[in-house]
Amino acid sequence: MDLAIGIDIGGTKTKIGLVNNEGHCLEDTFFRTKEYPNLEDYLDKIKSTVDEIKSKYPEGVNILGCGIGAPNASSRNGTIVNASNLNWKGTVPILEKLNERMPMPMKIMNDASAAAMGEMLFGNAKGMKDFIIITLGTGFGAGIVANGKLVDGYDGFAGELGHVDMTIGDGRLTGQNVRGGLEAYVSATGLKRTILFMMCKYMDESRFRDIAYNDLHGEEISKAAEEGDPIALKAFDFTADILGMALANFTAFTQPEAFFLMGGLVNSGKWIFDPLHKYFEDYLLEFYKGKVKLLQSGIPGKTTAICGAAALIWEDHSV
Amino acid sequence: MDLAIGIDIGGTKTKIGLVNNEGHCLEDTFFRTKEYPNLEDYLDKIKSTVDEIKSKYPEGVNILGCGIGAPNASSRNGTIVNASNLNWKGTVPILEKLNERMPMPMKIMNDASAAAMGEMLFGNAKGMKDFIIITLGTGFGAGIVANGKLVDGYDGFAGELGHVDMTIGDGRLTGQNVRGGLEAYVSATGLKRTILFMMCKYMDESRFRDIAYNDLHGEEISKAAEEGDPIALKAFDFTADILGMALANFTAFTQPEAFFLMGGLVNSGKWIFDPLHKYFEDYLLEFYKGKVKLLQSGIPGKTTAICGAAALIWEDHSV
Repeated sequence: MDLAIGIDIGGTKTKIGLVNNEGHCLEDTFFRTKEYPNLEDYLDKIKSTVDEIKSKYPEGVNILGCGIGAPNASSRNGTIVNASNLNWKGTVPILEKLNERMPMPMKIMNDASAAAMGEMLFGNAKGMKDFIIITLGTGFGAGIVANGKLVDGYDGFAGELGHVDMTIGDGRLTGQNVRGGLEAYVSATGLKRTILFMMCKYMDESRFRDIAYNDLHGEEISKAAEEGDPIALKAFDFTADILGMALANFTAFTQPEAFFLMGGLVNSGKWIFDPLHKYFEDYLLEFYKGKVKLLQSGIPGKTTAICGAAALIWEDHSV
Repeated sequence: MDLAIGIDIGGTKTKIGLVNNEGHCLEDTFFRTKEYPNLEDYLDKIKSTVDEIKSKYPEGVNILGCGIGAPNASSRNGTIVNASNLNWKGTVPILEKLNERMPMPMKIMNDASAAAMGEMLFGNAKGMKDFIIITLGTGFGAGIVANGKLVDGYDGFAGELGHVDMTIGDGRLTGQNVRGGLEAYVSATGLKRTILFMMCKYMDESRFRDIAYNDLHGEEISKAAEEGDPIALKAFDFTADILGMALANFTAFTQPEAFFLMGGLVNSGKWIFDPLHKYFEDYLLEFYKGKVKLLQSGIPGKTTAICGAAALIWEDHSV
């Protein structure tokens, strides 16, 4: 059986899985990225994790290669550069170092671009020529497909839309020190920051007045909204407003047929999507209105990122 | 001799020319767009102008076709839709109507996308795979090339970057009623509006305090800057700041190797380019710094738009 390894390097979790030619993730696991602050230890941990999941097939499998999705990854150079949500600073030659441990065909790409490849090969973007993937996890990522091809950019750094300057009132800094950068507002982390902003701005009672920032998790914000917590509701509305404006602006760029939203923030479901639809259509230019879809991934949530990474390998084989 | 007709429909002028396979514009002329508010009259005027320049070749030429660049043009449908700088509102089926008058192969495209095609075929973008053309005339246009192909979008409306929301302090409206839209700041018209803004904000003496808005022309603003007029200098600095931020944001999208700037505002030369270089590099994310060029067109200024339009025809013939 032919399989591709998919690895998603995220600020919180590193997810690893084995993916078949139909985009099904047969095995998947994860470990916490920040538990391996030293790069060499981290790469050893990846290697041992891969060996572990391969060992579930004692009869052996044919591994075609390994695809990696990571923030701030350069597909051209096989490096990760100054990723604000990762421990390793500067330019990390991750592909070369991992290949020493696991000799096989290997590709790396911006995590959102990998997700776009996955959606094209295995998910809801089959047959689409122009679409954009937005990943709303610890950070904000984007994978852009135009004319049926991934937009890579001059040296592999296209789609860093989380650092687009939004010049919003409270002028937050992103991890790249962009004042008012999108990621500082629209991401799982951004939503938590907005909870603080709303508690600062308004005096409403809220369960979040009893929870420290570091103890706050995204799921709780949806739960609070469900219970009518005014701070949670205001935070979702504010986030949807900014995301709606951003997506309307992005539409003017490549005019996608659809945006696919994925990542932690999407688990908030209607709390984010209902106001988002309204704001997005409001902000769209007249001649785009009603033409751009907001969709969710066609790949099961838990494994979207792994399948996307593996798709980098599968695109070179007949699927 | 094989020639292509190139037509550039601008808010101020309609330029028409005959272009050979090396991108040389052999004949060119123009008339004022607003003198023909009625669409049928306007198309008749185009037809008679084409006949006129063709008549300069009594021995006859072989016209391969006619390429048109226009604001808000849909290449897919052959229409112009709600172009804020043109007289005709709604959806104008310009290709069909012009083809009735001049039966020949015809293509229409967003004026800046046409300019991008011209730059790729005949100008300074030869061999580049990722670049963006910015046209700064009456309005603000953009033509995006990624992976060596023009980005058209789902139904031909990609690159409408003039209507990207910049959320700048004074919140001007564009012709599409986008509050804080880029075109309201960065275009020949935007620069004139900024002269008003600066005279409102500051009390400096300036020659512009004696000139009515409708009597003000772009060339005078450069001339005033040359003479040290503080309002002109502040206006250029402000414009360059916003354009620098916009181009830095656009870089995060497709990471172009270069931006090509063209159109009326570019004639201001160092007054716009010197501060622009500084602001642009300042705003760029760390990993883009020093990698993105700001260039001028390789096609003589007066005929850039005509050659771009004609390139839409030439791309289908060996050049």
